[in-house]
Amino acid sequence: MAAFSDAGTVQRMLDFEAALARAEARCGVIPEDAAEIIAATCRADEIDLDALAAAAVAAGNLAIPLVRQLTARVKSRDEQAARYVHWGATSQDAIDTGMVLQLREALQAIDTDLHAVGDACAALATRHRNTPMVARTWLQHALPTTFGLKAAGWLDALRRDRRRLGATRAQAAVLQFGGAAGTLASLGAAAPAVIAALGRELSLEVPAAPWHACRDRLVEVATTLGMLTGTLGKIARDIALMMQTEVAEVAEPASPGRGGSSTMPHKRNPVGCAAVLTAAVRVPPLVATMLAGMVQEHERALGGWQAEWDTLPQVVTLAAGALRQTLEVVSGLQVDAGRMRANLDMTNGLILAEAAMLELGGRIGRLPAHHLVEGACRRAVAEGTTLRQALGATLAEAPAHAGLMDAAALDRVCDPANYFGSAGEFVDQALAAWRESRTPAPTPIP
Amino acid sequence: MAAFSDAGTVQRMLDFEAALARAEARCGVIPEDAAEIIAATCRADEIDLDALAAAAVAAGNLAIPLVRQLTARVKSRDEQAARYVHWGATSQDAIDTGMVLQLREALQAIDTDLHAVGDACAALATRHRNTPMVARTWLQHALPTTFGLKAAGWLDALRRDRRRLGATRAQAAVLQFGGAAGTLASLGAAAPAVIAALGRELSLEVPAAPWHACRDRLVEVATTLGMLTGTLGKIARDIALMMQTEVAEVAEPASPGRGGSSTMPHKRNPVGCAAVLTAAVRVPPLVATMLAGMVQEHERALGGWQAEWDTLPQVVTLAAGALRQTLEVVSGLQVDAGRMRANLDMTNGLILAEAAMLELGGRIGRLPAHHLVEGACRRAVAEGTTLRQALGATLAEAPAHAGLMDAAALDRVCDPANYFGSAGEFVDQALAAWRESRTPAPTPIP
Amino acid sequence: MAAFSDAGTVQRMLDFEAALARAEARCGVIPEDAAEIIAATCRADEIDLDALAAAAVAAGNLAIPLVRQLTARVKSRDEQAARYVHWGATSQDAIDTGMVLQLREALQAIDTDLHAVGDACAALATRHRNTPMVARTWLQHALPTTFGLKAAGWLDALRRDRRRLGATRAQAAVLQFGGAAGTLASLGAAAPAVIAALGRELSLEVPAAPWHACRDRLVEVATTLGMLTGTLGKIARDIALMMQTEVAEVAEPASPGRGGSSTMPHKRNPVGCAAVLTAAVRVPPLVATMLAGMVQEHERALGGWQAEWDTLPQVVTLAAGALRQTLEVVSGLQVDAGRMRANLDMTNGLILAEAAMLELGGRIGRLPAHHLVEGACRRAVAEGTTLRQALGATLAEAPAHAGLMDAAALDRVCDPANYFGSAGEFVDQALAAWRESRTPAPTPIP
Amino acid sequence: MAAFSDAGTVQRMLDFEAALARAEARCGVIPEDAAEIIAATCRADEIDLDALAAAAVAAGNLAIPLVRQLTARVKSRDEQAARYVHWGATSQDAIDTGMVLQLREALQAIDTDLHAVGDACAALATRHRNTPMVARTWLQHALPTTFGLKAAGWLDALRRDRRRLGATRAQAAVLQFGGAAGTLASLGAAAPAVIAALGRELSLEVPAAPWHACRDRLVEVATTLGMLTGTLGKIARDIALMMQTEVAEVAEPASPGRGGSSTMPHKRNPVGCAAVLTAAVRVPPLVATMLAGMVQEHERALGGWQAEWDTLPQVVTLAAGALRQTLEVVSGLQVDAGRMRANLDMTNGLILAEAAMLELGGRIGRLPAHHLVEGACRRAVAEGTTLRQALGATLAEAPAHAGLMDAAALDRVCDPANYFGSAGEFVDQALAAWRESRTPAPTPIP
Repeated sequence: MAAFSDAGTVQRMLDFEAALARAEARCGVIPEDAAEIIAATCRADEIDLDALAAAAVAAGNLAIPLVRQLTARVKSRDEQAARYVHWGATSQDAIDTGMVLQLREALQAIDTDLHAVGDACAALATRHRNTPMVARTWLQHALPTTFGLKAAGWLDALRRDRRRLGATRAQAAVLQFGGAAGTLASLGAAAPAVIAALGRELSLEVPAAPWHACRDRLVEVATTLGMLTGTLGKIARDIALMMQTEVAEVAEPASPGRGGSSTMPHKRNPVGCAAVLTAAVRVPPLVATMLAGMVQEHERALGGWQAEWDTLPQVVTLAAGALRQTLEVVSGLQVDAGRMRANLDMTNGLILAEAAMLELGGRIGRLPAHHLVEGACRRAVAEGTTLRQALGATLAEAPAHAGLMDAAALDRVCDPANYFGSAGEFVDQALAAWRESRTPAPTPIP
Repeated sequence: MAAFSDAGTVQRMLDFEAALARAEARCGVIPEDAAEIIAATCRADEIDLDALAAAAVAAGNLAIPLVRQLTARVKSRDEQAARYVHWGATSQDAIDTGMVLQLREALQAIDTDLHAVGDACAALATRHRNTPMVARTWLQHALPTTFGLKAAGWLDALRRDRRRLGATRAQAAVLQFGGAAGTLASLGAAAPAVIAALGRELSLEVPAAPWHACRDRLVEVATTLGMLTGTLGKIARDIALMMQTEVAEVAEPASPGRGGSSTMPHKRNPVGCAAVLTAAVRVPPLVATMLAGMVQEHERALGGWQAEWDTLPQVVTLAAGALRQTLEVVSGLQVDAGRMRANLDMTNGLILAEAAMLELGGRIGRLPAHHLVEGACRRAVAEGTTLRQALGATLAEAPAHAGLMDAAALDRVCDPANYFGSAGEFVDQALAAWRESRTPAPTPIP
Repeated sequence: MAAFSDAGTVQRMLDFEAALARAEARCGVIPEDAAEIIAATCRADEIDLDALAAAAVAAGNLAIPLVRQLTARVKSRDEQAARYVHWGATSQDAIDTGMVLQLREALQAIDTDLHAVGDACAALATRHRNTPMVARTWLQHALPTTFGLKAAGWLDALRRDRRRLGATRAQAAVLQFGGAAGTLASLGAAAPAVIAALGRELSLEVPAAPWHACRDRLVEVATTLGMLTGTLGKIARDIALMMQTEVAEVAEPASPGRGGSSTMPHKRNPVGCAAVLTAAVRVPPLVATMLAGMVQEHERALGGWQAEWDTLPQVVTLAAGALRQTLEVVSGLQVDAGRMRANLDMTNGLILAEAAMLELGGRIGRLPAHHLVEGACRRAVAEGTTLRQALGATLAEAPAHAGLMDAAALDRVCDPANYFGSAGEFVDQALAAWRESRTPAPTPIP
Repeated sequence: MAAFSDAGTVQRMLDFEAALARAEARCGVIPEDAAEIIAATCRADEIDLDALAAAAVAAGNLAIPLVRQLTARVKSRDEQAARYVHWGATSQDAIDTGMVLQLREALQAIDTDLHAVGDACAALATRHRNTPMVARTWLQHALPTTFGLKAAGWLDALRRDRRRLGATRAQAAVLQFGGAAGTLASLGAAAPAVIAALGRELSLEVPAAPWHACRDRLVEVATTLGMLTGTLGKIARDIALMMQTEVAEVAEPASPGRGGSSTMPHKRNPVGCAAVLTAAVRVPPLVATMLAGMVQEHERALGGWQAEWDTLPQVVTLAAGALRQTLEVVSGLQVDAGRMRANLDMTNGLILAEAAMLELGGRIGRLPAHHLVEGACRRAVAEGTTLRQALGATLAEAPAHAGLMDAAALDRVCDPANYFGSAGEFVDQALAAWRESRTPAPTPIP
C-alpha cells in the first residue's frame, strides 16, 4: 500500500514534524517564520531515502537520521529555523504518530474495499437465495442447503469485521507526543497547549497520557485485521474447494494470464484464493508478535516496540491485499448452478435420509421410521438405486405401511428443494443486518 | 475457573439441552411433559464424567456421548421423553452454545477483577501523583518522572482493555442453533419460533444465521483477552524490574510461603509477576491458534473448529489467572518512595542535563547552552561530582556567564522535582477518564 | 500419554529424588540407610495428588510441595533419613530432570509409532507403485501420477522426521543438576562425583554445565515434533481431500461408531484426519511459545521457564496422538484404484496436452506443436469430445500433418499410463532410503 | 543479507536455469550451443527487476515472469536457443532450488559468525573463570557465582546451536527438480540422468523424490535458526539487565553515534541487545508460520508454499543480524569486575546464608544450624549489619556454641569466593566441549 511505501513512511513522519512546528508556533513556543520554513521543508521528495536507510541501522531507528537530514535541509534555508526542528519531541513521538497516520489512511482504504466485498457477497446471497447446493460437513456431503446461505454466512462475518474495523479506526487515530520520557518536561508549562494544537493540526485525538510503552491501540489494529483475514481465508477456502476439478461449482473470474496454464489447458487455478490463503497462513503469527511485544520495559522498550516496525505494516499490507483479491474473486465469481444441483444428486438422494425419517416419524413414530429409512438407505446403496426408489420399494413390500406415502409424497420428501429449512429466512436476516450496518462511522474513542 | 472445569463444561451443554427442550415445548414441537423431564435431568452431577471423556475420544466430540448419556438417563425416567432429547439440534449447537455460556460467566468475573485492578492502579496513581522516580528508557536512567505517571499509564491501558471487554462480551453472547447443516431443516416451519424462544430461555442474542464455520465472535474473545494479558504483562515486567535487588523500589505483598526462600533469606521473589509473565508468554501464540483456525471448510470444519476446544479455555484461564495475580500484586504493592528518590540521584544529577540545557538555552541560545552543559557533564563524570557542582564551577570560571545563574537558580534547575513536566496533568486526565468509563455496559451487538 | 499423566509427572520427579539419594549415598554424602529409605518412599502412589496440585499454585512450582510431602512420608519412617531428602538440589533440578525422563519415555513410544506409520506408507507405495491417479496442483487436475508416488512422498518425509527424532532424543536425554544457582556449591567438593553417579543412576548424559536458563535442548523436542506434526498434517490433508464425496478415491478404515452418522447414512467422516489436522493447527503456535520462552533472565527465568510446563507436554501429547491417528488411518486405508482412474479421465484427456505437445514437438518443432495442441484442446472443450478425438480430427483435417501420427500413436500419447515419467524410480528410491534408514539409533550427543 | 537481496534471489534462480541447461546438454536433451547461450544469459544484471516484481503479482510467482524475461533475452541472441530455456522444469523447481542456494550461502556465513561468537564467549569464560558475581534467580540475588560460568552457559548453548546448524545445512542442500507434477514426465527416459547431472552442476544432493509439497527440509532451517535466535536473546537479555544503570556490571562497546544521547549524557543504551531482542520477539512466530505452512495440498499447495517466500528469508535475515550484533556486543564487552564484586556484597552477606547453614550443619546438625542461621539473618536485617557480624554475635551469645567457629572460620564461610562450588569445573568442561566441537562439518544427509 502507498501509505507503507518507504516514501509514504517518511512523509508521515515529516507530516508530524511539520504539524509540530506549526502547533508550537501557534502556542508561541517557536517563531512563526521558523515554523513556516520547517513545514515547507517537510517533503519526502527532499529526503535521500537510501542514505536514510543506511543511517537508520546504526542509529537504531528511522527518526534520528530523518531529523538530522531535515535539520540540514532547513538549515540550508534558514540557520535560525533549523534550531527549532523536532523541538521538544522524542524519536518515538515521530515514529508512532507517523505510524498512526499511515494506519488511518490504510484503514480507510480497507474499509472501502470491505464494504465492496460485503456488497458483492450480498449480491450473491440475493441472487442465489434459492439456488440449491449441498452442505458439506467434514468435507462430506451432509444435507441440502442453498448457495445463498453460504454467501450470507460470509456476508454476516464481513459485517462483524466492519463493525470491529470502525471501532479500531476510532481508537487508533490518536496522537503520540510525550518527549524523551513521556512527561513533555521539555516544553514546560506550554505542553498542554501544544498537545491540543498538535492534535488539531493532525486531526488526531489527544490521549490522556503518552503511550510510549502501552501499545494496545496499535495491537488492536493487528487483531482486527487478523480476524478480517481469517474471514477472508474462510471464504477463499470455500471457493477453492468448490473450484476443484471434481466439484466445479464456481470459478474465479478469468482474465488473460491469470491462473491459466499453456501446458495444462484444462486448469483454471484459484490464484486469488491462493493469495488470500497465503495471507491467512502468515497473519496469525504476526498478530502473535504484536501481542508478545506488548510486554515492554518501563518508559521505552527493548525489543517489543522495535518488533512492531516491520510487523504491523506486514499485517496491514497482507490484509489489504487479501481483501483486494477477495473483491476480485467474489465480485466476478462464476457460479454454475447446474453443477451445484448435479452434485446435490451425487449420493442418489441419500442426503435426504433425515428428511425421510422426520416425515415418516410424524406418521409411525421416530424409532420405526429410523429403522425403515436405514433399511432403505442400505438397499439403495446395495442395488445402486436412488433413495426415492428404494424407499418406494421398501414401503410397497411392507403391508403394514400400505398407503403410508403415495408417489407424490415420496417425490416431495425426496426433493432437496423441499428441505432447505430456514435457509431463506437466514439469508434475508443477514441481508437486512448488512443494510442496517451502513450507519455513519462511530465517533472517535480516545 | 469454575466455568471451565469438566463439570462446568458439561453443565453448560446441559443448560443448552434443557433450554432447547423447554423452547420446543413452548412452540409445540415436543410435548410439555417430555420437556419437563428432560430439563430436570440436565444436571452434570448425573453424568459419568470419566465415561464421557473416554467416549469423547472415539466419537470425536463431547456432545455425542453426552447426549447419549442424557438420553439414557431420561429414558430411565420416561421412555417417551427420551425421544425428544436434543431434538433437531446438532452436536455443534450444544458445544458452541455451551462455550458461549461459559464465556459469558467467565468474562463477567474477568470484568469484575479488571475493574478492581484498575481501581488499585488509580489509587497508586492518586497517592503517588507527585512521588519522584526515574524514567527509564532502554533500561537506562533517562529523565525524572513520577511513580504516579507510571501507574496512570497502566491505568489508561486497563481502561481501554475494559472498553474492549465490554464490546466483546456483548457480541459473544449469541446463540448457536442451526441443526446438522445450518438450515434447521429438522424443525421445518417451527424453526424461527424455536430459535426465538431458545434465545429468550438462555438470554442470548439470536444471530442472523448460524455461524458454525464463521468463528470471529469467539476469536474476538481471544484477541481481547490477549491484549489484556499484554497489558498485565507490561505491568508485571515493570514491577519485576523495580523489585530487582539492585533497584528495590517496590515489593510484592508478603504472605507466608509466598516468594520466600529459607536458604536465601534476603529474597522476596516476584512470584505474582512471574505468573503474569508466564501468561504473557503463553497467550499470544494461543491467540494465533484461534486466528489460524478461522479458515474453516464449508459448513463444518476439519481441524479449525476442534482446535478451539482446548485453546480458548486456556486463553481465558490464563488471562483470568494473570488478572487475579495482578490484583494481589498491585493492590498490596509496597512502594519505597525513599529508594525511588535515591535511585533518581544515582547519576549525580546527569539526568537533568536536558533541563539545564533548556534553562540555559533560554538565556544564551540553544547551541551555546548545549556546549556548556555537555562540558559540565563531562566534568562531573571526570571529577566524580554532581552536575550541580560541575555546572556551578563551569559557570563560575567563565566570565562571559557571570551572573547567569545564581545558586538558587542552579539548585532549582538541578532539582528533579522541578522537571516533571506535565506528569501531574497526565495523571489527572487518566484518572478522570477512568472515572468516566464506569458507564453501564454497552447493549448487546448480535 | 501415560508419561504425562499427573501421576506420571510426579513419579518421574520422584525417580530423580530416589536416584539423587542413591548417588549421594554412593559418594558418601548422605548415609546409605537414609538413601534406601528415601528411595523406597519415592512412589507416586504415596503422594496426595490433589493436595499437591493445590499447594503448587501457592508455591509457584510442583517440586516444593512434592519435596515437602516426600519429606513428611520419609520422616514417618525415619526421622534421620528425612534430613537428606532433596539434599543439595533445587526445585528446578527435580522438575527439569523429571521432564527429561518423561520425554525419553514418550519419544521412545513416538519413534515406535513413527516407524510403524512409515512401514504402512511403504506398503502403500509398494502396492500402488503403478496405480494411476491424477496429480493435483492448486487443487486442480494437473498431470497423471501414481498413488505410489504420493505415498512415497509421505514416506520420505517420515524418514527425515525419524532421523530428526533420533538426534533429538539423544541430545535431550541429559541430566539437570546444579543446585540453587547452578554451581552446586551445596555439595562442595563432592559435586563432580555426585553428578557422575546421578547420571549413571538415571542413564542420562552429564552436561558440561547446568542449563537452568539455557533451554534449547527441550525446545528442540518441540521443533522436531512440530515438523513431524506438519508432515502428518500434510498426509491428513491429502487423505481428507481424497475422501471428499466428489473425489472418493480413498476412505479411512470403518469401525463401529467411527465417523458414521445415523441421519446421514452416506457419510464416512474423516475423523482420524480431523484429529491430525487439529493437532497441525495447534502445535505450531505452541512451538513458538517454546522458542519465545528461551529469552530467560540470568540464572532462573521469570516466565519463560514456567511457560514450558504445560506447553511442552501439550506438544508431545498432540504429536503422539496425531501419530497414532495417522497409523490407524494409513494402515487401514481403503484405496479405490478404479475411482482414481475414473477421476484421471474426468477432463477427457486434456491433462495429457503436455504429453501431446512434447510428442508432436519432437516431430514438427515445439512452437507449431504447441499451437496445434492448443487448438485441439479448445476443440475438445467446445465439442465435448476427448483430446484423443479432437487431436485425431485436427490432424486429419490438416494436409501438412498427414501421416504425422497414426491411430496407435494417438492412443499411446493419450494414455495416461504412458506419462508417469520417473514416478516408479522415485518410489523405488524412497523405499530404498526407508529401508536403509533402519540403522541403530545414533549414540547420545550431550 | 546479500543472498536475499532482490538481485540475489533472481541470480540464484538463474543459476538453476543455467545449470539445468548445461545438465540437459550434457545428457543430450538440448543442444550444446543452446545451453551455452542460455547459461551465458543467466545474469541478474540483465533482468529488469522492477518489471519482474510487477509481473510477479499477476503471475502468482517470480519464476513465470523471470523465465519469460530470460527467454526474451536468449531469443534476442539466438532464436533456436530460446526454445530450450527452462526445458522440462516447473516454476517451483526454479524457486525452490534458488531458495536452497540462497540458504546454503547464508548458512555458511551464519556458521562463520556463530563460530566467532562462540570464540568470544569462550574468551570471556576463560578470562573471567574466577571473577565473582552474584547469581540471580527470579531477578533477585541468590548465591555467588562467577561471570565465567555465566559466559560458559552461553557458550555451551552456542555449541549446541552450531551442531544443529551443521546438520541442518547438510540436509537442506538438496535439489528440487520434478517438473509440473513431480514425475518429470516432461523429460521422459532422460530424467534420471538429467537429475544426476543437475545435482552435480549445483553441488546439491539429489533427493529420493521431488519434495514440492513436503517442506520439512526448509522448515528445519527455520527451527534451527529459531533456536539460535533464542540463545542469542538469552545472552542479550542477560547483558541488557547487567547494563542497567543500577547494576552497571557490563557495557556494550562504545562507538561514535552508537547508543549515546546528547540530552541524556549518562546513557549508554544497549542498542545491540535491543536489536537481538527484537529478533527474539519476531522470529518465533515466523517459525510457527513455516510449521503451519507444512499442511500442503496434494502436489502443490494453496497458500502453505507461498507463505514461505517472505517468511523464511525474514527468519534468516533476522537471525543473521542478531548474530552479527551479538558478535559486536560480546567481543567488545566492557566488564566491570569491581562492580560485580560490589553488587555481590549488596545484601550484606545474606546470600551466604546457605553456605553458613551447610558449614554449621556439618557441626551441629542440619535443623539447629538452620534455626541459628535464620536467626542471624533476621538480626542482620534488623540491626543493619552484615551476616558475618550477626552470626559472630549470635554464636558469641550462645554458650552452647562456644568455640564452634572462630573468627577465621567465620570469615571463610562468609567470603563468597569460597562458595563458588563447581563453577570452575563447569567452565572448564564447557570450554573443552567447545574446542572439541571444531570438527569437520558432517557429510550431507539427503
